[in-house]
Amino acid sequence: MAAVTLLIQNGTLITAGDTYQADLAIAGEKIVALGQNLSQQEPGGVAEILDASGLLVIPGGIDPHVHLQYPQGPNRVVSSDDWFTGTVAAACGGTTTVIDFVEAGPGETWMDAFESRLGESEYQAVIDYGFHMSFNRADERSLAEARSVIEAGMPSFKIYMAYDNIRLTDAEMLIALETLKEHGGLPIVHAENHDVIKHLVGRHRAKGHVEPRWHPHTRPAAGEAEATQRALALAEIVDSPMHLVHVSAAGGLDAIRRCRERGQPVTGEVCTQHLLLTDALCASPGFEPAKYIMAPPLRTNADTEAMWGGLENGNLDFVVTDHCPFTLAQKRGERRTPEFRRLPEGTVATPPEEPWSDGVPPFNQIPGGAPGVETRVPLLHHFGVNQGRLSLNQFVYHTSTAAAKLFGLYPRKGTIAPGSDADLVLFDPNCEVTISADALHQNCDYTPYQGMQVRGWPRSVLSRGEVIVRDGEFVGPEGRGRYLKRGFYA
Amino acid sequence: MAAVTLLIQNGTLITAGDTYQADLAIAGEKIVALGQNLSQQEPGGVAEILDASGLLVIPGGIDPHVHLQYPQGPNRVVSSDDWFTGTVAAACGGTTTVIDFVEAGPGETWMDAFESRLGESEYQAVIDYGFHMSFNRADERSLAEARSVIEAGMPSFKIYMAYDNIRLTDAEMLIALETLKEHGGLPIVHAENHDVIKHLVGRHRAKGHVEPRWHPHTRPAAGEAEATQRALALAEIVDSPMHLVHVSAAGGLDAIRRCRERGQPVTGEVCTQHLLLTDALCASPGFEPAKYIMAPPLRTNADTEAMWGGLENGNLDFVVTDHCPFTLAQKRGERRTPEFRRLPEGTVATPPEEPWSDGVPPFNQIPGGAPGVETRVPLLHHFGVNQGRLSLNQFVYHTSTAAAKLFGLYPRKGTIAPGSDADLVLFDPNCEVTISADALHQNCDYTPYQGMQVRGWPRSVLSRGEVIVRDGEFVGPEGRGRYLKRGFYA
Amino acid sequence: MAAVTLLIQNGTLITAGDTYQADLAIAGEKIVALGQNLSQQEPGGVAEILDASGLLVIPGGIDPHVHLQYPQGPNRVVSSDDWFTGTVAAACGGTTTVIDFVEAGPGETWMDAFESRLGESEYQAVIDYGFHMSFNRADERSLAEARSVIEAGMPSFKIYMAYDNIRLTDAEMLIALETLKEHGGLPIVHAENHDVIKHLVGRHRAKGHVEPRWHPHTRPAAGEAEATQRALALAEIVDSPMHLVHVSAAGGLDAIRRCRERGQPVTGEVCTQHLLLTDALCASPGFEPAKYIMAPPLRTNADTEAMWGGLENGNLDFVVTDHCPFTLAQKRGERRTPEFRRLPEGTVATPPEEPWSDGVPPFNQIPGGAPGVETRVPLLHHFGVNQGRLSLNQFVYHTSTAAAKLFGLYPRKGTIAPGSDADLVLFDPNCEVTISADALHQNCDYTPYQGMQVRGWPRSVLSRGEVIVRDGEFVGPEGRGRYLKRGFYA
Amino acid sequence: MAAVTLLIQNGTLITAGDTYQADLAIAGEKIVALGQNLSQQEPGGVAEILDASGLLVIPGGIDPHVHLQYPQGPNRVVSSDDWFTGTVAAACGGTTTVIDFVEAGPGETWMDAFESRLGESEYQAVIDYGFHMSFNRADERSLAEARSVIEAGMPSFKIYMAYDNIRLTDAEMLIALETLKEHGGLPIVHAENHDVIKHLVGRHRAKGHVEPRWHPHTRPAAGEAEATQRALALAEIVDSPMHLVHVSAAGGLDAIRRCRERGQPVTGEVCTQHLLLTDALCASPGFEPAKYIMAPPLRTNADTEAMWGGLENGNLDFVVTDHCPFTLAQKRGERRTPEFRRLPEGTVATPPEEPWSDGVPPFNQIPGGAPGVETRVPLLHHFGVNQGRLSLNQFVYHTSTAAAKLFGLYPRKGTIAPGSDADLVLFDPNCEVTISADALHQNCDYTPYQGMQVRGWPRSVLSRGEVIVRDGEFVGPEGRGRYLKRGFYA
Repeated sequence: MAAVTLLIQNGTLITAGDTYQADLAIAGEKIVALGQNLSQQEPGGVAEILDASGLLVIPGGIDPHVHLQYPQGPNRVVSSDDWFTGTVAAACGGTTTVIDFVEAGPGETWMDAFESRLGESEYQAVIDYGFHMSFNRADERSLAEARSVIEAGMPSFKIYMAYDNIRLTDAEMLIALETLKEHGGLPIVHAENHDVIKHLVGRHRAKGHVEPRWHPHTRPAAGEAEATQRALALAEIVDSPMHLVHVSAAGGLDAIRRCRERGQPVTGEVCTQHLLLTDALCASPGFEPAKYIMAPPLRTNADTEAMWGGLENGNLDFVVTDHCPFTLAQKRGERRTPEFRRLPEGTVATPPEEPWSDGVPPFNQIPGGAPGVETRVPLLHHFGVNQGRLSLNQFVYHTSTAAAKLFGLYPRKGTIAPGSDADLVLFDPNCEVTISADALHQNCDYTPYQGMQVRGWPRSVLSRGEVIVRDGEFVGPEGRGRYLKRGFYA
Repeated sequence: MAAVTLLIQNGTLITAGDTYQADLAIAGEKIVALGQNLSQQEPGGVAEILDASGLLVIPGGIDPHVHLQYPQGPNRVVSSDDWFTGTVAAACGGTTTVIDFVEAGPGETWMDAFESRLGESEYQAVIDYGFHMSFNRADERSLAEARSVIEAGMPSFKIYMAYDNIRLTDAEMLIALETLKEHGGLPIVHAENHDVIKHLVGRHRAKGHVEPRWHPHTRPAAGEAEATQRALALAEIVDSPMHLVHVSAAGGLDAIRRCRERGQPVTGEVCTQHLLLTDALCASPGFEPAKYIMAPPLRTNADTEAMWGGLENGNLDFVVTDHCPFTLAQKRGERRTPEFRRLPEGTVATPPEEPWSDGVPPFNQIPGGAPGVETRVPLLHHFGVNQGRLSLNQFVYHTSTAAAKLFGLYPRKGTIAPGSDADLVLFDPNCEVTISADALHQNCDYTPYQGMQVRGWPRSVLSRGEVIVRDGEFVGPEGRGRYLKRGFYA
Repeated sequence: MAAVTLLIQNGTLITAGDTYQADLAIAGEKIVALGQNLSQQEPGGVAEILDASGLLVIPGGIDPHVHLQYPQGPNRVVSSDDWFTGTVAAACGGTTTVIDFVEAGPGETWMDAFESRLGESEYQAVIDYGFHMSFNRADERSLAEARSVIEAGMPSFKIYMAYDNIRLTDAEMLIALETLKEHGGLPIVHAENHDVIKHLVGRHRAKGHVEPRWHPHTRPAAGEAEATQRALALAEIVDSPMHLVHVSAAGGLDAIRRCRERGQPVTGEVCTQHLLLTDALCASPGFEPAKYIMAPPLRTNADTEAMWGGLENGNLDFVVTDHCPFTLAQKRGERRTPEFRRLPEGTVATPPEEPWSDGVPPFNQIPGGAPGVETRVPLLHHFGVNQGRLSLNQFVYHTSTAAAKLFGLYPRKGTIAPGSDADLVLFDPNCEVTISADALHQNCDYTPYQGMQVRGWPRSVLSRGEVIVRDGEFVGPEGRGRYLKRGFYA
Repeated sequence: MAAVTLLIQNGTLITAGDTYQADLAIAGEKIVALGQNLSQQEPGGVAEILDASGLLVIPGGIDPHVHLQYPQGPNRVVSSDDWFTGTVAAACGGTTTVIDFVEAGPGETWMDAFESRLGESEYQAVIDYGFHMSFNRADERSLAEARSVIEAGMPSFKIYMAYDNIRLTDAEMLIALETLKEHGGLPIVHAENHDVIKHLVGRHRAKGHVEPRWHPHTRPAAGEAEATQRALALAEIVDSPMHLVHVSAAGGLDAIRRCRERGQPVTGEVCTQHLLLTDALCASPGFEPAKYIMAPPLRTNADTEAMWGGLENGNLDFVVTDHCPFTLAQKRGERRTPEFRRLPEGTVATPPEEPWSDGVPPFNQIPGGAPGVETRVPLLHHFGVNQGRLSLNQFVYHTSTAAAKLFGLYPRKGTIAPGSDADLVLFDPNCEVTISADALHQNCDYTPYQGMQVRGWPRSVLSRGEVIVRDGEFVGPEGRGRYLKRGFYA
């Protein structure tokens, strides 16, 4: 056994399958042993001992759906967490791996876009990260790149059914699914009916509906359920597996359930916000609902109940955030580029040349998204475990293990086992926290969960054997995170 | 009471709701009285007495889905029954009303196309008929015509989700549904996923699959189920009623059932062939499966069972034929225009200038459709009533009443009541017939039901008080049928 | 045609299948003709003409679940409507046929009990009536009587799964189902789990729960769903048809639906109260909830919604009342025998010898049941038709036709057709009524529907060609009703 | 860390959640460490090293449903595996824990029966074992014993809904569920409708049906589905958790699924035979089907498919055997007591005094049950994992972990973790075996799986750190197994 560099003693280890008391030995970046009274066997001593008495030792969280410094939409408004602030926030919230997206521009190959994205992350990220490739077109050249993309460690491809310029038609999606099937890639699908959204936006705008509260009316649950069923039908027809991102409507989940009962290989994820927040937050006039403008939008209480049911019975596999923060100034249209610590090359921090309107832009021009990467693990612990909906093992499964397995990171990430990366959270189940944007590490001036009280918060966080969060504060160096070349799903 | 011109005595009257013994008096075109021993009260005598002892007196069948002399597809191969042979066949089979379609050409208004279609039918049809308008485009001019079309007696509009040139995209369909809702029109939808069909045709052709047996492989049940769910979601989103034509896949029916359970106003029809024939008929090599090339294609035994279940529990409302016959020569590509009694103006009966191939054309160029209008009522009686699946009342409901109510013909058509048109069938429940193309009146040299043995066949048929079929043979004059200006659905 | 004695002109006739304008001719007790302008053809004149302009002419209602002067339970508290007041109330409410029950005592044969019951009804009933036989034991002698009972016109047998002394065990029920199957009898089942009720009554009484509001807690929806599933499983095992009486729990209805989808021959009925009233009425302390003590008890709003859904989609066949009134004095335990116009022979009108308690008896000793026979038709019209849940045809089907067909009265009763009994209601769809016990004809000093406002009420009612209600008041002679010897179900 | 006594090197460790390469260190009876290259750290050497290269290291199987030397039914025919042969068979098949049953006789307390049963097992068993207590009566004295039974390590109680003398009525079951709820006990229920079975046995016997093939006809799937629904309804009513033993009918599983979707705490198990064998085996005349006489009986192919679906989607928790072997001589009625190695005290090995019949006894007197404990793990591996239905992790979960968690053995048993008992199987996934009774260690002259070919078989088996099976042969001492005092379910 390699020389032990760090020993975690007296903790309760929680994996997706097991709960037991044991010590945990780390040599360098890896877990090397789990055992009883491990310290006694190390005459040479160890560099560091962490006492985990009273704490849960869990695999570091994996959030496979984040958008860091993402230039969104035709106006290219950039999400306000860069790779440093976003990954620091993730780490402080118990997440040690994120998967973001590569979205090639019109004149750019997929692989060039990947290189470009890597250029942003490699000097900033403080935790390990991977990418999904956006399958944003189905031309011959892109199809020919699919294998290279997979070989470069991105075996999962995002397919949008909505959004101009990046969405695929059904005809294109069939080709995409076949191409991915040929090379072993996994389609992950944003399922909303594009025409429905455009139609309803047009109808509402024609009625003079411009306030943020109209946004959810243009992206109805029926349109998500429809697109989900359609995507799954296309997958069935070409015999392809499929993952559905941010399932939010009970009707969409029900479509997944029916396919799974017939044995179709389908997985699904749900966002924290679609478990905990409802469209009641979007009902007020004025600017306030702009905080919750996102896609899919917040749904009804019946939908959130259905999502919890999906986690409990396994029809939903894991919990993500779709972390895509914009500051209130950005939501108001006052800035396109956030006040980053450092400006990304080629971006301008000044307000946009042409202000969208005198006041708040109309709902369909407000950048969509909200922060969440830092609060996901504690929220799921509190509202899942503390409220009796999930066991601790399910909590670990839904925040870490399931995503690791689907996205080709397992067993390197996602569990506690000899040989795995020492990505670990020492989680204090009794720490009481009132969530507030002030106290978070994200680069965003609000949180949708403001004022929520939770019991349970990460105390220390390790990434590849290094303690990067101590007592809730980030202590690691910038740029230490590594790009994860992912394999095929398990 | 007007002077009775015809009296039907001693019959058992069957309506959708009732079964009873009574005499039936007709004055001119109308039923004027139902009663016991009606003959005794008519001192002046009646023009004619029909003895219906041992017979069932049922409302004349309504087949709201036929295609007579229809120039199909880009090659405009014309279906082989003209308005005379097609309506004679219908009448001999117990059907006294058909609803066909108007499909405007590229340079033609909807109303012009209607006038043109009327020009074909009015001198030939022997029973009453109506039209659905094909909502084959969503341009401003057509939308502006919708009200005129409805006022002209066509409140139902066919929307195709498949087929180039005539199909609507989701965006167009939303506009169409809203337009119809505004004017009280009913959308009736052909639900198959267009992109799926095109994709699979391409894939199969690329593999060298040209024989007729490949046709069903390109129109999978999952593609019908998908499109059905999508159509119903769009209807839900704009709060529109919807009718689904020729439901054939269990998955599509299940989508209808789920919507109905939530209270959505949805109706559905099924074709005789999707109740009685399965894809086993399409499995053989060679030309034979060309007889069954139609859309949707024949499905599995599980699907036909599901369709019967749908009729029994009411999730399917009525039985149609999608009668669209092509002779074997047409199926083989030897002729575009059938050997009509008289050629429609402007058509040429000779073979096409450019034969499609040396032999049989590839499956996707064979005209799609099959004959059925003459056998629908006896087949549903035999396989429904005689085999214990349907009551006599359900049989009448599914072959006549339900369509009359949905398509604005009730109570003029579709029942036996004072004031209703005297469209009646004296049906002999004990008459045994072996179905054979030789013995049918259709202008087509095959029937998909060849050799089937049924018990029960129409003996006499009345249309608006006139006996037009006696002992199984047509005895009426050509062109006596009238265009039915239909009202809104009940 | 026999001499017409009464002519109804200008009405809109509504049957389960049809809606049309026609005149209706009656000769003696029967409908003899339906026709247009029938009056013109009758030179000899008719005895009476009723002008039904603006009125609906519907088949007289059939309530196949009533309990008139029924000595309930071990204390034999007699329900407060005798055959006169009960049938007058029915007639005034638009119901022209009731089916009550025969329940043999311990030392009595089934046929003797029938004769005895007939002795009560024949001098009092003002409308026609039939009986279900209570299959309240499975001894050899009773089994041997089943055929005689059926031949005497009672082909339907009530099986209780709850209530001491009259319920059947599963073992006995299997024998009963087989016996009925052999002779063509139909089991109609009261499905509640007996042991559950006894257990919960014991538990609640042990906690000192005595007030009426505790009653629903002892008859949970889960106990009804359970018994329904069990009954249907036993029916499946011996391949027997089955009718479920007073379905009230969504879980029970769901069990029926699942069986019907598999093709099992199952029917179900629902009571007016389980469509319109909820358990919120049972929540208050004090005596008030005693008015709603009945079995099954009132359920939740979700259950009533499910019941409406069942009527709409046909999984429930008809609406009954389980009319079993007790006066408030009887509910309070002050009297066993109601203040009848005339005392039934052998009964004593004085208070019981041993008062049950100083005050109100505990919930489980309060007689169970409520009045309803007079308000069923108008309530279903108002809350069904006026509120858009049911068509007029469904309204007729659910209040009359369906019961006639199931219980062997059709086509004598349950429709409007030549040859049928002239049991008709001239229903004024615009008459507005506020329901009040004061204005009803029942012998009960309260109604559960007090204060409800409805639009639509019977104006005149005919029974076998005789006008027995004019302008809302009973005008016929006592004892004119006849026992209906029923045939097998259609 | 305690001194390591045994080291397993180079294996692939499989738990319910994880798959990884690691060495495993055992000190005495416990696993003490999991790690990479563990051997390098032990200068003092270890007593034994097992090389697990190419092998899977899995937690020892747990079969929580066996019947060893069980005197069944009124004739008290004793199952043919005693505690020695039965546990040797289990061990050789990869199972290191069994849970059997205690069933008190009429004059015996529950705790006395437990002591008596312990007297049989403690000198013979070679693996650890526990007991479920049979809740075979609901008298006051037994109810008062429930807490002692739980404290003695038996927190799970079997409730039979069928079988004279031991079954509970619904009334008794409600009391039992409440009693268990009070003390934290878990009801585990054999759900078949008793009256249905008795009725059908009577009917078939009356028709002269005596051969073994009639047995399944008397225990229909509908009777199991019914009883399952009833048990779950009773559990819902008193708010009790419940486990269903040997689910075999799709209808029963569907009832479980519906309850789980509503959040009711329900678990279920399935037997190997109900996954792999169908009623086609019971169709032949003669004695052969006697091998498969068991309760529930073998079901249809649709049922076995449903059971696999239940395992895949988690609606069934684990796989058991209901191991209850009888030799062919016992099945034929020639012997009551098997040819044990040693006769249990007080039993007589000679044939019964009164032979049941000249030949084979009638189907309902043949002892019910079949062997299976030795083949469960390899069969589930082959037909589950090799055929792509289950992952290796699910295989471990369903054969070991899930039962450990439900039955209070976790984490002592059911996983691989520091601190857990070293109950381990070195499973060779490539070993090909044709199953044959000759080669098995059970004391029974047939196996229902005769001739089946599987890939994958246990090579070595450890129980509490001791190698008891080497290269497929038992090498341990008799009587080494220990009684497991179980805790509450996790």
